Amino acid sequence: MDTEDLKTRVLAGERRALARAITLVESGRADHRAQALALLDGLKGHGREALRIGLSGTPGVGKSTFIETFGCMLTGKGLKVAVLAVDPSSARSGGSILGDKTRMERLSREKNAFIRPSPAQSQLGGVARRTREAIDLCEAAGFDVILIETVGVGQSETMVAEMCDLFLLLLAPAGGDELQGVKRGIMEMADILLINKADGDLKTQALRTCADYAGALRLLRKRPQDPEGFPKAMTVSAVEAQGLEAAWQEMNTLARWRRETGHFAGRRAEQARYWFEAEVRDGLLARLRAASARQAMRSLAAEVEAGKLTPGQAARQMLEEHLT
Amino acid sequence: MDTEDLKTRVLAGERRALARAITLVESGRADHRAQALALLDGLKGHGREALRIGLSGTPGVGKSTFIETFGCMLTGKGLKVAVLAVDPSSARSGGSILGDKTRMERLSREKNAFIRPSPAQSQLGGVARRTREAIDLCEAAGFDVILIETVGVGQSETMVAEMCDLFLLLLAPAGGDELQGVKRGIMEMADILLINKADGDLKTQALRTCADYAGALRLLRKRPQDPEGFPKAMTVSAVEAQGLEAAWQEMNTLARWRRETGHFAGRRAEQARYWFEAEVRDGLLARLRAASARQAMRSLAAEVEAGKLTPGQAARQMLEEHLT
Repeated sequence: MDTEDLKTRVLAGERRALARAITLVESGRADHRAQALALLDGLKGHGREALRIGLSGTPGVGKSTFIETFGCMLTGKGLKVAVLAVDPSSARSGGSILGDKTRMERLSREKNAFIRPSPAQSQLGGVARRTREAIDLCEAAGFDVILIETVGVGQSETMVAEMCDLFLLLLAPAGGDELQGVKRGIMEMADILLINKADGDLKTQALRTCADYAGALRLLRKRPQDPEGFPKAMTVSAVEAQGLEAAWQEMNTLARWRRETGHFAGRRAEQARYWFEAEVRDGLLARLRAASARQAMRSLAAEVEAGKLTPGQAARQMLEEHLT
Repeated sequence: MDTEDLKTRVLAGERRALARAITLVESGRADHRAQALALLDGLKGHGREALRIGLSGTPGVGKSTFIETFGCMLTGKGLKVAVLAVDPSSARSGGSILGDKTRMERLSREKNAFIRPSPAQSQLGGVARRTREAIDLCEAAGFDVILIETVGVGQSETMVAEMCDLFLLLLAPAGGDELQGVKRGIMEMADILLINKADGDLKTQALRTCADYAGALRLLRKRPQDPEGFPKAMTVSAVEAQGLEAAWQEMNTLARWRRETGHFAGRRAEQARYWFEAEVRDGLLARLRAASARQAMRSLAAEVEAGKLTPGQAARQMLEEHLT
């Protein structure tokens, strides 16, 4: 399929074309990369705007069930929903948090849903670029909501927060002492904290946990991108599909306010700039992986190890003679 | 003073020349940098080998008192002792952990001691390079022991561990629960854990804490660079100068074993390679700070923010047209 054809089919919302386009942006081959860039360039200015929602939470908190139930609720409203996963650990472990669609069996059967596992990449920078580009493709394909799931570990959360319009943090009911366990930095990234498992025996505890978090949120400085009352904490039950409608309404309230005040577009512009700068840095460092650079690094490193050159001298020689 | 003269005086162990040489490596001026590199190159192969000891510990644990007492004990043995500090936060706070020699009044009066505060630098990479070069200068000046002090915060500890032959972690007596607070990564870097304040009311608690840490250390995998029994935990009292002689003997036992088995030289070679590679990366990224690059970044970022270029397109243009 040529680039023009692929572009037409992605814009028509064809799922197989979308899957193929994502495979293209995930590829490490130079010719694929060139085609991917041409495709992304061709898709620019399609005028569609999805709501990009980041979702984080530690394993066991119920992310898959939440996405399944929440996603089905949205498709039930006639919305097209894409789910992408960011799991930098999947490259090492070989398994992916979304490697198995059976985790979201009901949602994966919906014709208006599209689920894509995390790209297998060894470098966080590579995962970031490919996920961003997959988001752009899903948006061009006419998806209304794009959920970007990540595991609750530092760097990947910051990365996802830099790609989405809203950021949700899914939490489990907990004792008061455990509240401190949620890092302040992650609290500050979140727009809505969802305390899951507010059902059965855990319901009372979930309500208490929610109140604790609400109290903690009030201590944070008000952010310019938030209307009154945000960030906020709410309880949900993914298993019983409780509270999801209310959560969706809050997301829309927040998104509407940000659109009207210009924060929505402002944040996207900032994010684009952030990723441009990150890609330039990654691209510079990638020069060290070229065959000739690696050979020069190896031979200079040998001289450094033997004490013939100081690290500074060798670095200067490398930069001046081999990286110009 | 010309470079040749400075070199002669540093090799003669003149403290003022050493201080001047360190000021030179700390300077950001291009002509100073060139002179610093020439000096370091000229000093290569002086054949002297100091014992480089890294020391970390959170504020309040008694680092200054320990260095004062331990340093004086060493000068009392006729050894020449240099103390350097690494404090990446000092650039921001304006104050330095060693900005004030009055913290180590007794040691600073010793003619065989040399104390130097942390260089004021905004970038961790800059602090690293300057500290490494200061270590080289102290070694060339004939110091027998170089103590490199750092505050107990992640990145600066890793940095210091990559510059020293032995790494000490100073700890306070604590309840059993607090033991978890010491990050596993830092435990794994340490060669000797010193539980300080083993005096007065805290003595019993210090002994119990020491036993707890000794138990935790036994769970770590044995490292090839360690003889039987290392890493180890010991109690000391910096205030009463207790246990410091025993600690010094353990440091010597470890250093001797590593010298005999080749791990000492092997680690220095690895460290040199590590810093060579780090400097190459820093040097590549420094190209983004050149005036012309900054201007191009700004104008491309504006196009990205306006949606005229994708981050990927703009990055490619930057790399191909402005960073070659």
